[in-house]
Amino acid sequence: MNKSQLSAREILKEWGIRNFRVIDKQAISEITLGASILATGGGGDPEIGLLWTYKVLDEGKEILMVDPMDVPDEIQTASTACLGAAIVLTEKPPSSDVLSLAMERLETYLGRKIEATIPLECGGVNSPVSYAAAGEMGIPVIDVDGMNRAFPELQMTSWVTHGMHSSPTVSVDNRKNVTVIDTGDDDVLAETLARRAAMAYGGISWIATYPLTGEQMKETSILGSQSIAWAVGRAVMRARQEHLDPIVELLNSLKEERNVEGFRVFRGKIVDINRDFGSETNKGFTLGTVTLDGIDSYKGQTATLDFQNEWLNLRVDGKVLCLPPDLIAILDSETGEPIRTDIMKYGYRGTVVVIPAHERMRTPKGIEMFGPRHFGYDLDYMPVEDLNTAGGGV
Amino acid sequence: MNKSQLSAREILKEWGIRNFRVIDKQAISEITLGASILATGGGGDPEIGLLWTYKVLDEGKEILMVDPMDVPDEIQTASTACLGAAIVLTEKPPSSDVLSLAMERLETYLGRKIEATIPLECGGVNSPVSYAAAGEMGIPVIDVDGMNRAFPELQMTSWVTHGMHSSPTVSVDNRKNVTVIDTGDDDVLAETLARRAAMAYGGISWIATYPLTGEQMKETSILGSQSIAWAVGRAVMRARQEHLDPIVELLNSLKEERNVEGFRVFRGKIVDINRDFGSETNKGFTLGTVTLDGIDSYKGQTATLDFQNEWLNLRVDGKVLCLPPDLIAILDSETGEPIRTDIMKYGYRGTVVVIPAHERMRTPKGIEMFGPRHFGYDLDYMPVEDLNTAGGGV
Repeated sequence: MNKSQLSAREILKEWGIRNFRVIDKQAISEITLGASILATGGGGDPEIGLLWTYKVLDEGKEILMVDPMDVPDEIQTASTACLGAAIVLTEKPPSSDVLSLAMERLETYLGRKIEATIPLECGGVNSPVSYAAAGEMGIPVIDVDGMNRAFPELQMTSWVTHGMHSSPTVSVDNRKNVTVIDTGDDDVLAETLARRAAMAYGGISWIATYPLTGEQMKETSILGSQSIAWAVGRAVMRARQEHLDPIVELLNSLKEERNVEGFRVFRGKIVDINRDFGSETNKGFTLGTVTLDGIDSYKGQTATLDFQNEWLNLRVDGKVLCLPPDLIAILDSETGEPIRTDIMKYGYRGTVVVIPAHERMRTPKGIEMFGPRHFGYDLDYMPVEDLNTAGGGV
Repeated sequence: MNKSQLSAREILKEWGIRNFRVIDKQAISEITLGASILATGGGGDPEIGLLWTYKVLDEGKEILMVDPMDVPDEIQTASTACLGAAIVLTEKPPSSDVLSLAMERLETYLGRKIEATIPLECGGVNSPVSYAAAGEMGIPVIDVDGMNRAFPELQMTSWVTHGMHSSPTVSVDNRKNVTVIDTGDDDVLAETLARRAAMAYGGISWIATYPLTGEQMKETSILGSQSIAWAVGRAVMRARQEHLDPIVELLNSLKEERNVEGFRVFRGKIVDINRDFGSETNKGFTLGTVTLDGIDSYKGQTATLDFQNEWLNLRVDGKVLCLPPDLIAILDSETGEPIRTDIMKYGYRGTVVVIPAHERMRTPKGIEMFGPRHFGYDLDYMPVEDLNTAGGGV
C-alpha cells in the first residue's frame, strides 16, 4: 500500500468534494471514546486502536472523513476490522500491515481498487482501525458504519438487513496467513467461516469485508454513525474537563445528534462474573453473565446482564429493561469511561445506561437477525423507550 | 470450464508429447479399484468417483494420462479432491461443477491457467475425481500423486515433505460457497482451515490445491503412482475373472510394479467397532478402533486397528505389525474388494495385508510428519518389512 501521502485529498478532489473533516489525534480520541461507549460493553481496548491511528498520523499521513451523500455512486468501498475475541487481542498486538494485507487481497479477489473505508461498527478497536487503514492506504473514511454499536457477529449489520452481503471477506493474521471467504448471500456461513479462521489463527483475525459501491453504501449504512460517536465522545470529554456529570452530557449529546432519549437505569457494583471462555465451545467469543448489586438510590436492587462480546440484555430485579439490538453501557460514573466485558472485574462500580438502537437496526429484518430470539431469549423485542417509562433518566 | 473437447490432446501436441494413455471406463475402473485398495481403509466410496468419471466419458470428453517426465518444467499443475469425512459423502452427493469451480477460483487467485491435474492421493473418490476434473477441463492427468496411499490430512504428502506447500488451496461446496486458504509455508494451518471450512459446509468440501509447476511436480511427487494403482486394480480384476487368489495377485503386482514385498498377515471377522463420529470433537474425520477375531489359521488371535479416515496401525495379539506411513488393507478374501473404515460393519470378514509405503513417503521428514509419533503413538517408526519377517505372506 505505497500510495503517495496526499492521495486521500486527491481522491476527494477527483470526486469534487470540498467539504471533509481532517481527523487529528484529538478528533480520533473523541470518536474512539464515543464509539467505545456505543460499543455496548464490547469493541475491544481503545488503547490498541488509538495507538495504531496515532502512529499513522505521526508518520505524516492524512486521515480525512467525508459525508456519505457526497460520495459518487460508482466507487468501491470496503470495511476493515478485527474479528475475534477481544480478550485475546490484549495479548496479541497486531502488526501494522495486517489491514493493508487484507485490503490488498480483497482488491485482488474483486479485481477492483478500494477507494474508501467504511467502519464496520462502533468499537474501541474497530472504529480507529478504519481510520488507521484509511490513513495507511491514502483513501478517505466515510461517515457511516454498519451498526452504530458493536455486535458479536459479522452478519449483524444494517448492510445485511438491507440486502447487502459480507462476501467476499478476506481474513488474515499477523503471520500473513490469508483466508478468502466467498459465500454469496449466506452471511451466517461467512461469519462461521471467518470465526473458525480466527480461532485457527489463535483467536484473532483482521478482515477486509463488505465491499459495497458508493450507492449501496448510501442506501444501507448507518449514515452519520461516525458523527454520532464523535458527538458522544466530545460530550463526555467536555464533562470531564468541566467537571459535569458525564452521563447527563452523554444523554444530551444523543438527544442533540440523534434526537433520541437514552435512560440512566441503574448504578451498582459488580458482585459476580460468570465467564465461559477459552474453549472451542464458545466459538471465539467472550461469553458469560454479570451481576451488579445496586448502590445509592438503587440499593437493594440487583441487575443482571448477559454478554457475548457485547452486553445482550439487562434485567433489574427480574424486570427486562433492555433487549437487543438496543444498546447497554456500564459507565464509570465519574469519567464516563465504559466498563467492557473483556476487562471488567469484581468490585467495579458503574452507572448503567440504555440507548435506543439506530432505526436502520430496528427493521423487522433486523429484529429477526439480531433481536432477542436470535440470541436465545424467549421474548419479543420491545423498544428500550417502552421498557423504560419517561423519567427513567434519574 | 467450457473448453473444446479435444484440448487435452491439443495441449499434449503443444508439449510435443506423443505417448499418452487414453483412459476409458475399463481403465478408470481398474485404476479406481487399485487406488481404493491402496487407500488403506479410507478414500471413500469408489462408486461415487466412478459414476462421476463415467458421466464425463459418456459426454464424449477425453481423459488422457501422461508420464510426468514428459511434461514441460514451466507448466502449471494442481490437484483437485474431496476433503472431509467420507461417511458424509454418501449422503451428500456432489454436483458436477464443484471441481471446476474450485479450479477456476484457484486460477483466478494464482492469475494463471492450470494445465494438468495431479491426483492428491489413492482413493475411491479422489483418484477418479482427478480424472473427471481433467476430462471436464480438457486437460491431461499426470501419472503421479502426493501419497500413493490415502492419508487423513492435507499436508501429509510427499509434496510437503519435499518442500512444496498446499497454499493457496480453494475449498468450495455444493452451494458455490468458496473459501481461499493461503497460509504460505504453514501447511498444518492450511489443513486446519480447510477442515474447518468443510465442517462449516456440512462435512464435505471440494478443493483445488497444491499448485505446482511441472518441475516441482517431477521433483516432489510419487512418480508413477497412477500406474501402480492401475497394476494393482488390473491384477485383482484378473484374479476375479480367472478365479485366482486376489491377495496373491495383488502382492505379485506390487512386486512387479514397485519391486516391493507386501505381506498377508491376518484373516478375521470384525467383532467390535468403536466409532467416535459426528461431533465437533473429531474435527471432521471418521475416527475409531476396530477389533477382528482371527479365523482359519489365525483362529484364537485378535487384531486391532485404529483409524482416522484411514487405518493407522495394526496390532495382532498386542504385537505391532504395521505403523504409518506403511499401508494396511482389509480385503474381502474372495473378491479383493477393500473393506473401508466408513462402511465396515460387525461380521465383515477379510484378509489383512500390509504394504511398504513409497520411498518418497519414508524420508525422515515424512516419518516426522506422518509417522507413528505424529498420530500419538509412543513408538519409533519401523518399516513393515522389519515388523513382518520373510515368509509373512502365508
